Amino acid sequence: MTRAPVTIVTYDWVPPFAQGYVREIRARWAAEEAGIPYRIETVPVSPKSAAHREMQPFEQVPVLKDGDLTLFESGAIALYLAEGTALLPESRRAEVTQWLIAALNSVEPQVMAWVTAGLFDKDEAAAERAMKRLQPRLAQLAAALEGRDWLVGDTFSVADLMMVEVLRGAGDDGALDDHPVLKAYVARATARPGFKKAMADHMAHWTDADRAKAEKQGAPA
Amino acid sequence: MTRAPVTIVTYDWVPPFAQGYVREIRARWAAEEAGIPYRIETVPVSPKSAAHREMQPFEQVPVLKDGDLTLFESGAIALYLAEGTALLPESRRAEVTQWLIAALNSVEPQVMAWVTAGLFDKDEAAAERAMKRLQPRLAQLAAALEGRDWLVGDTFSVADLMMVEVLRGAGDDGALDDHPVLKAYVARATARPGFKKAMADHMAHWTDADRAKAEKQGAPA
Repeated sequence: MTRAPVTIVTYDWVPPFAQGYVREIRARWAAEEAGIPYRIETVPVSPKSAAHREMQPFEQVPVLKDGDLTLFESGAIALYLAEGTALLPESRRAEVTQWLIAALNSVEPQVMAWVTAGLFDKDEAAAERAMKRLQPRLAQLAAALEGRDWLVGDTFSVADLMMVEVLRGAGDDGALDDHPVLKAYVARATARPGFKKAMADHMAHWTDADRAKAEKQGAPA
Repeated sequence: MTRAPVTIVTYDWVPPFAQGYVREIRARWAAEEAGIPYRIETVPVSPKSAAHREMQPFEQVPVLKDGDLTLFESGAIALYLAEGTALLPESRRAEVTQWLIAALNSVEPQVMAWVTAGLFDKDEAAAERAMKRLQPRLAQLAAALEGRDWLVGDTFSVADLMMVEVLRGAGDDGALDDHPVLKAYVARATARPGFKKAMADHMAHWTDADRAKAEKQGAPA
């Protein structure tokens, strides 16, 4: 049985610091793990388009299109792609959903508060407060993962995909340095062929976008 | 068919400013809407107990217990209670999940950033920045809800329950004043008998807790 490809919508370009982190990587990774073919469509990163707003009220990416269905929120897209696959075993649906939502509601907001204060607002005091809230949360997560490879049972699930995506950026900025359990968890997950393929294609998209942008700017007026 | 009651775990007491907002109200409301009987168990709010940590790695509430299953994250609990009911129509599962996750990952973090900066950190500049990020997000949500009663189709779903819970606290603090569509949405949802019952029982729990605390403090040593 062949499945019709789904469409993942991402930006036409993002600045270098965001490459590797645009959340469409989550949809790519889920599709790779689920064995679902996909193609990429783009929307302008700036200014945002009416067509984009029509698909995504908050003007973010990714958006998933599958036949008549248009879906946003990377968490919902990942769950959707995981349906009926080993990423979301029916007998563990509640627990997998619990950890996926923990990633999005109990961990990511703390990470984003730190990133927002430090990177965007350059407010050292606010960044320090955010870090003091984030670190105990990470320690709690590390304690829950101690001695385990994955969050639910013995197999990689869509909850791990989402938790690792939330932790990966924080780790790249040094927030996991005191948590070897979490660093090993991220390393274990990102060593999977599905992640490597998704990330390679994600980065190739931005390399192509950079080249197209440079050619456009370098072209005679 | 009678269903065995589930157990919702909440705190033994919280200070007055938190009464009405402890997230166990979300589990109560979902149970009321789904017609699932429940009883309440408590864990100490301070200091946190090992038994609590065992159930909830982040030492938060609510926790749901249903037979052998123990579940945390209010979003996951609400989805679980909604399974097989009109709160989560199977044909609209992806869209309902999308909006539930939008509440938890695209709206609540912005609300919490504002509340944290203003209420807890008393940092006016940070609160102002958070408000400047929150308001456009609320305007986008209001645009998506314009002319609609509920987020998905024509019926109240678990996505509305979660979005309204995220907005309700923000609205009580004045953040919805420029968004009549959102104020009307919150009013419409909180007028439901399921919410009224859940909130009355929620507040009665804290009234009882206040009385027990006062009696304990007033008792001869």
